[in-house]
Amino acid sequence: MPSPLYKVVMDTLVGRIASGALPPGSMLPSETQIGRELGVAQGTARKALIELEARGLIYREQGRGTFVSRHTTENALFRFFRVRKPDGTLDEPSLVSEAIRERAAKARERDTLSGAPQRVFEISRLRRLGSSTLFSETSVVSTSQFPGLRNRSPLPNTLYVFFQQSYSTMILRADEVLTAKLADEAMAERLGIELGAPLMEINRTAFDALDQAVELRAMTFPAGSHRYFASLT
Amino acid sequence: MPSPLYKVVMDTLVGRIASGALPPGSMLPSETQIGRELGVAQGTARKALIELEARGLIYREQGRGTFVSRHTTENALFRFFRVRKPDGTLDEPSLVSEAIRERAAKARERDTLSGAPQRVFEISRLRRLGSSTLFSETSVVSTSQFPGLRNRSPLPNTLYVFFQQSYSTMILRADEVLTAKLADEAMAERLGIELGAPLMEINRTAFDALDQAVELRAMTFPAGSHRYFASLT
Repeated sequence: MPSPLYKVVMDTLVGRIASGALPPGSMLPSETQIGRELGVAQGTARKALIELEARGLIYREQGRGTFVSRHTTENALFRFFRVRKPDGTLDEPSLVSEAIRERAAKARERDTLSGAPQRVFEISRLRRLGSSTLFSETSVVSTSQFPGLRNRSPLPNTLYVFFQQSYSTMILRADEVLTAKLADEAMAERLGIELGAPLMEINRTAFDALDQAVELRAMTFPAGSHRYFASLT
Repeated sequence: MPSPLYKVVMDTLVGRIASGALPPGSMLPSETQIGRELGVAQGTARKALIELEARGLIYREQGRGTFVSRHTTENALFRFFRVRKPDGTLDEPSLVSEAIRERAAKARERDTLSGAPQRVFEISRLRRLGSSTLFSETSVVSTSQFPGLRNRSPLPNTLYVFFQQSYSTMILRADEVLTAKLADEAMAERLGIELGAPLMEINRTAFDALDQAVELRAMTFPAGSHRYFASLT
């Protein structure tokens, strides 16, 4: 069964956004122009734009036009960082230490990441939430998709803003798998907590505008002071 | 600032769905009919229907029409039960034991639940995932919103299908707050695990079609055998 026409229009526009032909913040052609260029009805172009807006790739400004979304520190944190204080408020994370190394990809990383990379950058960051909670985070990305990343250390606080600005890679969705663990000796020392204290561990796979997996991230934090907030619809 | 016109149309239709005037599975009027009845353009009616479809309240069948969604056991489990085996597959829960009691609402329940109920039903269920994992679940709902619920025990496996079929209450979204804990003596005995083993605890607030909180639910399961899966978009 062929894709509905509006999906073909969507894919074309996503391709242009992903390739950088339509960079973040740039204005999209009008429905009429898209219709004429791609040979579809204006209603089909409109349906494609409504879907792209629902997916967060573009946004409309009444009377001005339609624009490619830009990750800002604020919306990236709001959308992709679901760890909060028990009352639901955000403790903005600050960097304590960072180490980036290049290494061979593990089998699971090669199998999951787009392009089946042989080499990856492993970005290990220790961050502080509020005044006292430490938060451990390790991101793994392909070296070929993020050339020179190691020389950019220390990286900006919000990696996804950096990925978009420096590599035109726009993270649009992520899957997270959560579990509870007891702190082993290494993690107890890293987070400054007691051996055997309860921890939350989040394993994330992040996807770009073409829905390719571009980052694997493991996050660990003490369960005592923070919670994970999810919305089901 | 007044609401955009399509939101007024949405609210009107949601009200009819929530009141039971448009029951689950029933066909909605056409865009033209809605436009004529509510005195709006057909495009405005269309936009309202697109939004209601995105929120899962209605669905379209090509060439047949637009219908009010029906919770089925399958989609309720898929949407609202995010606990899976580590490989992502679902262990369908089966009931081990159930106890329903009526009691005075605690302050937090009165403050959160719609209608600020004085009395609530507390539904405590012990469920089994797969062959060996036990899963503890306690739901709290207003007695006035769910009259006679206690006499319906044992309740069907999927509470939200039961809420919709027996009380016209359609759960459309839920907020979940997750944390990790060590099993205390009571929970270790209830779940048949070791004292101090790591547990995942989920605290849910579930909302109906009018976006009113109608259920508070606490869920606890051993972290060893199952995970919590979330999607961020």
